Amino acid sequence: MASIEVFPNPAPHRPFVIKHFTNEFTSVCPKTGQPDFATIELEYIPAATCIELKSLKLYYYSFRNEGIYYEAVTNRLLDELVAACEPAWMRVTGHFNIRGGIGSTIIAETGPKPE
Amino acid sequence: MASIEVFPNPAPHRPFVIKHFTNEFTSVCPKTGQPDFATIELEYIPAATCIELKSLKLYYYSFRNEGIYYEAVTNRLLDELVAACEPAWMRVTGHFNIRGGIGSTIIAETGPKPE
Amino acid sequence: MASIEVFPNPAPHRPFVIKHFTNEFTSVCPKTGQPDFATIELEYIPAATCIELKSLKLYYYSFRNEGIYYEAVTNRLLDELVAACEPAWMRVTGHFNIRGGIGSTIIAETGPKPE
Amino acid sequence: MASIEVFPNPAPHRPFVIKHFTNEFTSVCPKTGQPDFATIELEYIPAATCIELKSLKLYYYSFRNEGIYYEAVTNRLLDELVAACEPAWMRVTGHFNIRGGIGSTIIAETGPKPE
Amino acid sequence: MASIEVFPNPAPHRPFVIKHFTNEFTSVCPKTGQPDFATIELEYIPAATCIELKSLKLYYYSFRNEGIYYEAVTNRLLDELVAACEPAWMRVTGHFNIRGGIGSTIIAETGPKPE
Amino acid sequence: MASIEVFPNPAPHRPFVIKHFTNEFTSVCPKTGQPDFATIELEYIPAATCIELKSLKLYYYSFRNEGIYYEAVTNRLLDELVAACEPAWMRVTGHFNIRGGIGSTIIAETGPKPE
Amino acid sequence: MASIEVFPNPAPHRPFVIKHFTNEFTSVCPKTGQPDFATIELEYIPAATCIELKSLKLYYYSFRNEGIYYEAVTNRLLDELVAACEPAWMRVTGHFNIRGGIGSTIIAETGPKPE
Amino acid sequence: MASIEVFPNPAPHRPFVIKHFTNEFTSVCPKTGQPDFATIELEYIPAATCIELKSLKLYYYSFRNEGIYYEAVTNRLLDELVAACEPAWMRVTGHFNIRGGIGSTIIAETGPKPE
Amino acid sequence: MASIEVFPNPAPHRPFVIKHFTNEFTSVCPKTGQPDFATIELEYIPAATCIELKSLKLYYYSFRNEGIYYEAVTNRLLDELVAACEPAWMRVTGHFNIRGGIGSTIIAETGPKPE
Amino acid sequence: MASIEVFPNPAPHRPFVIKHFTNEFTSVCPKTGQPDFATIELEYIPAATCIELKSLKLYYYSFRNEGIYYEAVTNRLLDELVAACEPAWMRVTGHFNIRGGIGSTIIAETGPKPE
Repeated sequence: MASIEVFPNPAPHRPFVIKHFTNEFTSVCPKTGQPDFATIELEYIPAATCIELKSLKLYYYSFRNEGIYYEAVTNRLLDELVAACEPAWMRVTGHFNIRGGIGSTIIAETGPKPE
Repeated sequence: MASIEVFPNPAPHRPFVIKHFTNEFTSVCPKTGQPDFATIELEYIPAATCIELKSLKLYYYSFRNEGIYYEAVTNRLLDELVAACEPAWMRVTGHFNIRGGIGSTIIAETGPKPE
Repeated sequence: MASIEVFPNPAPHRPFVIKHFTNEFTSVCPKTGQPDFATIELEYIPAATCIELKSLKLYYYSFRNEGIYYEAVTNRLLDELVAACEPAWMRVTGHFNIRGGIGSTIIAETGPKPE
Repeated sequence: MASIEVFPNPAPHRPFVIKHFTNEFTSVCPKTGQPDFATIELEYIPAATCIELKSLKLYYYSFRNEGIYYEAVTNRLLDELVAACEPAWMRVTGHFNIRGGIGSTIIAETGPKPE
Repeated sequence: MASIEVFPNPAPHRPFVIKHFTNEFTSVCPKTGQPDFATIELEYIPAATCIELKSLKLYYYSFRNEGIYYEAVTNRLLDELVAACEPAWMRVTGHFNIRGGIGSTIIAETGPKPE
Repeated sequence: MASIEVFPNPAPHRPFVIKHFTNEFTSVCPKTGQPDFATIELEYIPAATCIELKSLKLYYYSFRNEGIYYEAVTNRLLDELVAACEPAWMRVTGHFNIRGGIGSTIIAETGPKPE
Repeated sequence: MASIEVFPNPAPHRPFVIKHFTNEFTSVCPKTGQPDFATIELEYIPAATCIELKSLKLYYYSFRNEGIYYEAVTNRLLDELVAACEPAWMRVTGHFNIRGGIGSTIIAETGPKPE
Repeated sequence: MASIEVFPNPAPHRPFVIKHFTNEFTSVCPKTGQPDFATIELEYIPAATCIELKSLKLYYYSFRNEGIYYEAVTNRLLDELVAACEPAWMRVTGHFNIRGGIGSTIIAETGPKPE
Repeated sequence: MASIEVFPNPAPHRPFVIKHFTNEFTSVCPKTGQPDFATIELEYIPAATCIELKSLKLYYYSFRNEGIYYEAVTNRLLDELVAACEPAWMRVTGHFNIRGGIGSTIIAETGPKPE
Repeated sequence: MASIEVFPNPAPHRPFVIKHFTNEFTSVCPKTGQPDFATIELEYIPAATCIELKSLKLYYYSFRNEGIYYEAVTNRLLDELVAACEPAWMRVTGHFNIRGGIGSTIIAETGPKPE
């Protein structure tokens, strides 16, 4: 797994929301060996640290040749990103391209979004 | 009825949302014998099991030559998909193509969506 | 007034939402005698009966040569459709085409939408 | 038939293009007696006269209760509008709402559009 | 100021929502003397009376050569329209065209919208 | 094969264009037995006869359980529709839904569209 | 009439195209005295001079309280703008807001656009 | 830092919402020295004063050659704009252009938006 | 290189157009080693053979870990696809995702598209 | 001026089209000193060399603090880019943000685009 780097939260005096989205996520279907493609939305409220953008890009790229299902990869992204930056709240949404005429979206979060 | 297959929830440590949508649902009007066409959105929070995507596709295809009304088919989809995977929550939305200048949407769910 | 036909609710074991929309509603302005055009959205939660789609189309067509104002016609649609199917909840929304540079929307419902 | 009024071309020193479109055209299907709805685009290059806008609106309204097919009404609009203003060139395009899952467009013109 | 006319609420037996929007509002900047352009959305729940549409159009037109700022005009529209029809609730939203690379929206209402 | 009915061209005094489109075309993949879905655009310039709309709908429905490839079905539609109405010109365009991450469009016509 | 200022063409060594569009054009209907609103597109190939942008804005504003018909104003804009900058080619397109359910576009140009 | 000017709230008798958005914000990445581009949305409920629009434009322009990260700049905008006008509530949203295949949005506010 | 399979043209009696597009093409930048992502449009007029869709998918997938520039990959796709099916005409268009704030499109074809 | 780097055309055996677009171009108005913002589209058919993408980005960035008018900057981009890569054909299109309610587009090219 590529290392997710963090930097100190520049505004620890208030909660605020950070969103990063990419339409360049690709992994491999473990059953068929065919590539899967997804748009990944990451939303979080930082605590002490924020996720560094370039390391996030490389972390996403590390899934390129890995075989993993939609439901598993979305939850694993959440688990590993939470572990890296220990946020006040985080949500990961994966929009997976159409397969067999069906498009899929998986949404995992650490809990209800604080007001 | 085609069999709906399930697999173990890969992230039972948290509730999360799964959505599958298709614009390839077709059945037959029981009154006129003419085909109906719909976009079906399925949303659920899994409990112990998740719905396998290829079996979902085949399940949808099993309605291709069946005569059934909008309100009935949407509720039957919900009943059968709930029976198959026993989710924490589920909603089925059917957007039916224009007939007689009128488009229709039917929304059935097991209860209010948990926060 | 054209008769609005109903049929027994095929899923009385749960509340669910039905929406019908048409962009083919036309009536006549009582002041100018000129035609008015609207998109009508009908949303309801059925109780014992559902509205039959073809009779709804004919009911809408019955306003074609009737002189009636925006606010009045939207509320009359609600009154008559409620009388016909006695729903758990119903809302009628009329989007009326631009007249004098102003477009109008009227929204009438039987009460707050149940959760 | 409502009278189509014209006024003198205010710029006879050059050819120019006039377009009028409406999404408020409705007539009646001669076979079923049900209303048809269309968006009508009128494009022309005037010669000595231009079509007066309010009379065009009333002319369109005169089809409201007339039974006529798509192909016939589009060509009749062209014939009658040409007769009224004798343009250098004219095209009528009718976009008819979906019936039986099929939407239709009819395009009739007096000849190729001049450069 | 143009007179805002009202007519009796045709459905006093239930609260309902009326919306009127126009993209034809223009006034003058009091600092530069240059025209300002806005889209105005008016939403209200009538009490005893409703606003007559043609008088609303003329009322909007009365600002055409008046010098007034964004924040002031939106609140004045609300004050004067409330005075004219004494609604149960009213909101005025002004979307003002881009000036200096910045677009602006002002939203004023009489209080929270009733459920 | 369902019969394609025609009626006499109501405007034989000029060439004009007729377009019919539907997003309700479905056939079966001969290799996998799975349904295919397409949007079909039909454009033609009639000669002596025009295609009757209801028979066109039934003709499209007749492919519902037929196994045929994209390239073959688009050309067969053209061949059979040309045989039925002997037009001055005709084009059939099939937009087929995504399979294996690839969407496909097939365009067949009787020759260049006349000016 | 506001003065249209010009400046020397900065690239006289090649023909090139300049387009200016605004959705802030308003004049007055000479028949009803009501305001008209339009989007104006100006396209031209300069010869020795180009139109200065701020004077174009003021020129457009000078029509604010002038009574003039769609067809006349579009051609007058072309005549006066051609007189001001003597271009190699020019086209003026006016898209006028919906009146009586009909939207209008007028296109006037000095001749076919050079390749 | 450019000075942010304010003017007295013209409607202190009610709370209302002001939004200003621009797609012309640019700063410099402190790590690479390359320009960053963003769309900035500012929303607030004024107390005694409102932000003057031209000074806001100049304030945004003052970041043009400043090196600062996404998370820091969004929070600094909020801090400085709050200090300038002491609003009842304020939110700043920065939508930053795609870098390395990832687009980012940062949302900072003074607290929950009042009802 | 994955093998591109072909099948006999089912309609050799007329020229017709085939288009296949995918938003799931990815290769690697030879300079940075970072992934590139593109939407690829393939258009051709077949001669004796057509490209089989599943083999096309696998052929595209074979570029997944290959280092190649935009201009080179688009032309290589054209060269290899022409060699595989020897079409009457072919065009390949690659729309490459934004890098450094710049999006790129490369269009290569065998010659002008026949009428 | 930043140096525009080129690399050998990888497909000199056929003419093909390259397009690069960015919405991150900014310069300064020479009259007011205020920033201008534009989307720049570059299209060309290479001869012996192609423009290197990173140097193009830096070249665009070099205009960031330069005072220059719309018409001049678009033609200067064309002159300098032609000088750098000596293409078979090139076009530069600048879409400049709204100023004074008017948006502008300037299109300069080396001559008609070859078939």
